[in-house]
Parts: sequence; structure tokens; C-alpha cells
Amino acid sequence: MLKVPEHQVAGHIASDGKLGPLVDDQGRFFKPLQGDSRGQHEAKFYESFTSNKKVPDHIRRYFPVYHGTQLVEASDGSGKLPHLVLDDVVFVYSNPSVMDVKIGSRTWYPDVSEEYFKKCIKKDRQTTTVSLGFRVSGFKIFDHQESSFWRAEKKLVLGYNANGARLALRNFVSSNSPADSNSTPNCAFVSEVYGGSNGILAQLLELKDWFESQTLYHFNSCSILMIFENESILMKEGDDAPAARAQVKLVDFAHVLDGNGVIDHNFLGGLCSFIKFIKDIIQSVDKRDETDTSLLENGH
Amino acid sequence: MLKVPEHQVAGHIASDGKLGPLVDDQGRFFKPLQGDSRGQHEAKFYESFTSNKKVPDHIRRYFPVYHGTQLVEASDGSGKLPHLVLDDVVFVYSNPSVMDVKIGSRTWYPDVSEEYFKKCIKKDRQTTTVSLGFRVSGFKIFDHQESSFWRAEKKLVLGYNANGARLALRNFVSSNSPADSNSTPNCAFVSEVYGGSNGILAQLLELKDWFESQTLYHFNSCSILMIFENESILMKEGDDAPAARAQVKLVDFAHVLDGNGVIDHNFLGGLCSFIKFIKDIIQSVDKRDETDTSLLENGH
Repeated sequence: MLKVPEHQVAGHIASDGKLGPLVDDQGRFFKPLQGDSRGQHEAKFYESFTSNKKVPDHIRRYFPVYHGTQLVEASDGSGKLPHLVLDDVVFVYSNPSVMDVKIGSRTWYPDVSEEYFKKCIKKDRQTTTVSLGFRVSGFKIFDHQESSFWRAEKKLVLGYNANGARLALRNFVSSNSPADSNSTPNCAFVSEVYGGSNGILAQLLELKDWFESQTLYHFNSCSILMIFENESILMKEGDDAPAARAQVKLVDFAHVLDGNGVIDHNFLGGLCSFIKFIKDIIQSVDKRDETDTSLLENGH
Repeated sequence: MLKVPEHQVAGHIASDGKLGPLVDDQGRFFKPLQGDSRGQHEAKFYESFTSNKKVPDHIRRYFPVYHGTQLVEASDGSGKLPHLVLDDVVFVYSNPSVMDVKIGSRTWYPDVSEEYFKKCIKKDRQTTTVSLGFRVSGFKIFDHQESSFWRAEKKLVLGYNANGARLALRNFVSSNSPADSNSTPNCAFVSEVYGGSNGILAQLLELKDWFESQTLYHFNSCSILMIFENESILMKEGDDAPAARAQVKLVDFAHVLDGNGVIDHNFLGGLCSFIKFIKDIIQSVDKRDETDTSLLENGH
């Protein structure tokens, strides 16, 4: 009863008989162990992380819950393969908008092979990884006008410069159609999604606080997923509608290393840069709204 | 009346007829403009920074005061050359201990030539720049036992791993002779130099706070200088002795770029890692002292 996940926005995607993650209808996410030891490495990370008493409880909620590994019929028809069994982080949402942002100013790390180093640094320089300390890897937005999902083209996303990344982060919280490239994103959902005491920014700041002192793990090449219930925001006029449930999750741990007493300055620096982008968007909208109000008050 | 600076620990050093900075006896530091446009670039940075009203006053004190450029007889005998004229940051100290720490997990930056990129990344991977987000470039300590300065060998310093860097940072605030590699650094000066409300850590945290929001400059390949008056700490028994005057200064701006609305995540990440090293040393000594006290209290 496994199927291709509807809301995956980056990474290997199980379609057309390719190998990729699957989900069941009970809220579990099955990720095939990648062949070249990266899968084993990710399983080991989850086992270490799950049992590590030094990880504070309020930080655990930013990671998918791990339920071990399991042999599962693979999506590429190659028979039963070992899969990581994780909570499906978008299971409880009806029409989640999702963005995957790879954090860090490099995706390589000390002691990798020259081949891997060259592959990574080439892509890091071509994308915003080096310049911004993060790169948008993919996103999809529920488009209310069209009542369907709008998915950013992978090629376009990987070609973003600083302005492209900024625009994507504004589009992500806008109610006007992202398909219409002539309209300026209205950032209609910014206060519910990025702002507020439970919003994305508050969660990122909590993570930042931990990253300033944690020396347990170096999260090389990890992504931050941002998820929110787009549908429910527009329903909010009715009082019993659910909230946006904006959520940050860390995913992709195939390259995590022991911290060995050193903080993950690569992840932390990129996270701080990403936080500044989110803050700037919140502030620019606050300013716009103030201007609108003062125009109204002055009778314009 | 210009002479070779006594307390320079890294960079080009004006000795044996080479080109390097000079000082006068009035507290001015003369740095020759490097030929390949880097010197002009550094002069431009100082001019921009000096007149930039967006730089808060409490941040300015971490930068050498700039007095323009001046034609000065060069140290290599090549006649009069343009020099940056700066405040000599160690002028007021009698026996300053000085450490130069290059901050950042890379010294290259977007849009450099392939040649410069290759040169930088090779050194970044060989040193702790990639792994720690900073590298010690050089240091000297006033050795009370010998009544003379002990200078770390450049070759050794650039060969440090994480433990080497940690040991150097402990040696820097110890009163036992750094020349004796068998003795554990006693960190006798840690609370006066790294700790306290005016100490190195407090200053680094103030800088960190600024770097979390400033998007004016990207400080590629810059160094933090840590300076303190070693002499005065041991004199402290007498009441009228001066304090350690621990001080952080940023130096070397030949590769500074405009921030263009993005924070300097490369510098910030490295700075946070460096801060964690300093915090760990303060805490380890606090713990040791608590243990010593409790041993005394228990009559051991």
C-alpha cells in the first residue's frame, strides 16, 4: 500500500520506475538506503541521534521521528530493499506548501575524496551556497486561484542568485499566483507563517541557539524543510479553522559527522544568513502595512 | 624615525630589507599599499568605513583608526611609497602578548580568479580554516620567567589541528613558559584576559551581535588581533597597577567586499566557532578551580 509521496520537493523522486522514498497511509515515510554507504551512514545518524541524551527535547521536534529500518518493496521494481522508516512530516497537512533549503556555505567537508570535493564545490559556486550560505533546492505552493499545487522548476531554482532566492521566499508566503511572474508577491501569509511566536522565524532562532553551542554533530549537506498549511490560512475567517501550523524540519543526514568538540560553524553561518532573509521579509511587510495604514489615516 | 614594529605576529614583516609595515614613536602604524590593487582596495575600505554612518560607535572601537595615506620611505629601500596611516594598536602597551587569528571557513570569495581560488582553498584545507572556521596565524607571549617574548614558529602554527589551536589559545593566557612543551598551560590569566565584563569574550560577543545583522561589508580574509598587557597582570598585587587591557581588533581589509544586503555568514560562522573555543577554556578553568576549592574544603 506504499505510494510516491505527493509533497516531496527535492532529492531523488520515485517516479517512472526510479528509486525514491515512499509513504504509507498511516503517516510513515520510507527512504531507501542509498547504496554507497550513505544510506548506512544516515541510519547510523538516526540511531545515534535518537538515543543521544545530550540532545534537548525542544530540539528533537525539529527532526523526523525514526522507527528503524525495514525491508520494503522498492519503487524501482528491484525487489525488497532496506528503507529508513520515518514519520511522514507532511502527513497531517491537507494542502501543505513546502520548501527545501540546503543550509551551509559548502556541501563538502574535510576528508572527502577529491572527486566528491570537486563535484560539490562546483555546484556550491554555481548556486547561492557560497554567496548566501544556503540554496533553495525546491518548493511547491498551493495555489488558491488554481486550487492546485504550483511547483518551482528545478533548473530555475538552482539558477537563483540572491534576488531569486529572496523572491522565492516571498512567493512562498503569498496568496497571488506564483505562476504569474508579472505580479509582485503580496506576502499575504507572512505574519502567520514566518512571523509570530510559533512561526518559522521563532523556530529558526531556537535552532540557532542550539547550534551556537552544540558540538555533537556537523550537519553537512542537510536541508531545512519549511512546511505550512496554506489552505487553512484562507479559511481562518471562520473561527474554528485550524492555524497555518508552520513548521521547520531538518532532513537528509547522509553526510552528518561527529562534531568532536567543535560547533557546526558551516551550518550556523548559513542558518544566520537564512534567518536574516526571513527577518528582512517580515520587516519589509511590516513597513508596507504601516505605510498603508498611515495613508488611510491621512484620508488618501 | 620609522622602525620595524616589535609586536607584529603575522603578515609581511619588514626585516632584512623586505617590504613591510613600519611604526613611528607617536603611535602611528604605516602599512605599505600592496602593489596588485589590494592596497588601494584596503585604503578604499578604510575610507568607506570611516565615513559610514551606519557603523555603530561601539563597533568602531574594534577597528584601527585611519588617518589617510602618506608617502613614506619604504622599509625595503625602494624609496618613497604610499602607506596607509593607522593607529598603532599596541602603542600603549609595554609588553603586549598578541595573537592573530584569521576568521572564516574560507579565505577566497565569489568572483576571484581561478588561480587565487586554488591558492586559497589549498591553504584553507591544510590549516584549520575549513575544519574550525578560523586559523591561528601567529602569536607572541611575554614570558615572565625569561623576561622576553616567546614567538610561535610560523610553520608550527600553520600546521595546527583542532587540538593545536586549543593549546595555543590556552598557552596565550598562561604564566608558565610556553617554551617548555612538557608543562601543561596553567591558564593563570584566563579570567583577566578572556573572561570578565571587558574581556576578550565580552568583546567577541559584541562583535557577533553586530555580524548577525550587518550587511554592509563582507570581511574576507580578515584577522582578529587579541592583545593584552601581560606584564601588568603579575603586577596586580600592588593596588595601583594597571589592568590587563585585553583588546580585540579587526585588521587586514584588502579583501573586504560590499555586503549587498547579505550578512557575512562566513565571518560570523567562524567567529561563533572561535567564541566557543574561548568559552570552553574559561569553563574548563572554572571547573578546575571549583574542584581545587572543594578538595581544599574537604581537607585533601
